[in-house]
Amino acid sequence: MKQWVPYTNGRRFLIRLAHQRDLIQSIEELCRKASIQTATFSIIGAVSSITIGAYDQQQQVYVTFNKNEPYEIASCSGNVTLKNGNPIVHAHAILSDEQGKTLGGHLFSETLIFAAEIDIQELTGPPLQRTYDDITGLYLWKPPSE
Amino acid sequence: MKQWVPYTNGRRFLIRLAHQRDLIQSIEELCRKASIQTATFSIIGAVSSITIGAYDQQQQVYVTFNKNEPYEIASCSGNVTLKNGNPIVHAHAILSDEQGKTLGGHLFSETLIFAAEIDIQELTGPPLQRTYDDITGLYLWKPPSE
Amino acid sequence: MKQWVPYTNGRRFLIRLAHQRDLIQSIEELCRKASIQTATFSIIGAVSSITIGAYDQQQQVYVTFNKNEPYEIASCSGNVTLKNGNPIVHAHAILSDEQGKTLGGHLFSETLIFAAEIDIQELTGPPLQRTYDDITGLYLWKPPSE
Repeated sequence: MKQWVPYTNGRRFLIRLAHQRDLIQSIEELCRKASIQTATFSIIGAVSSITIGAYDQQQQVYVTFNKNEPYEIASCSGNVTLKNGNPIVHAHAILSDEQGKTLGGHLFSETLIFAAEIDIQELTGPPLQRTYDDITGLYLWKPPSE
Repeated sequence: MKQWVPYTNGRRFLIRLAHQRDLIQSIEELCRKASIQTATFSIIGAVSSITIGAYDQQQQVYVTFNKNEPYEIASCSGNVTLKNGNPIVHAHAILSDEQGKTLGGHLFSETLIFAAEIDIQELTGPPLQRTYDDITGLYLWKPPSE
Repeated sequence: MKQWVPYTNGRRFLIRLAHQRDLIQSIEELCRKASIQTATFSIIGAVSSITIGAYDQQQQVYVTFNKNEPYEIASCSGNVTLKNGNPIVHAHAILSDEQGKTLGGHLFSETLIFAAEIDIQELTGPPLQRTYDDITGLYLWKPPSE
């Protein structure tokens, strides 16, 4: 039977992210400054430009696009774990415009913050590493049986 | 005045769910293996097919549809509580395609995982039961006054 | 270097919100009854009408619209912090219809609950105040350097 190692909840921060900065980079910088290696987070707010995309499951590449227009961050959730020893962000988001129309996907840089509030929960326990997965072509956490 | 019984946070797991398995069933299996009765969770990743729907509030039935196409899990959040003594999943999701277009709703089986990361927080305290609610026709938690 | 004060997780509630009540007001009433000043939350369920909007970043006003139609709450996340000493809700949501089509944005009253389940996490620590921000025209948490 598989065994999972539980995390315990560490520090929790509610932080206003800085105007006109890249969203992904802001989270990674926050983690460096606060020495966070493992975390989950949720963000609401607004951005002035977006870069999002989806993974082409056949070709095994990300397809991305950029829009230099204002959007609400209707939802943004993700996690921070290690890749090559460094904390990296994996985030998905749904953005909405003034008509309520939405765009969603995997969040990339450059996505510029207008105003954003992050709720980030540090998790304490063994750091989680991303390694290359042959089947999907993605960098994933190890399966629990390994 | 109404009184609510607070939960305390139990074990927390960050887990990679298995490729090509049903998303709802994977969460319920995880809960069985880890003996989780009450929890909340958030998932990001991608799926190769979806079944989602909405509740027809007049007819009091779920209207569902299925697409055998790849999507990002732009957002998926939900909870685990008891129905007839067994932990069951209630989850809503927003899926997005390569153009960023989104579909959302109540998540059903069969929805097949391509790659998915779950953040699940066990809650400890009195188990929460779902019972039939006459007004909505849904299985809901009891109102706090009962 | 910037310093952030961490919160610790307080009480956590899973609560069924009342049918045909306003969603935002229900959360604020819950916080008053449970003496919650700082919290984050996530909601899934369904509503019978919505009022959502987006912030016009140039004109610095919210543009809102209302629909008296049933929707699933595909995602709703937000926080509770203080404005003028009172706990106020900031929430963003994505709603979906029977075709899976979505609308998203900043959540306003009046948005009437059909059935809704809130997962709310009280945070204990120094209360967070919203104050007017000249650059965005929004009431935001203070930047960490102040």
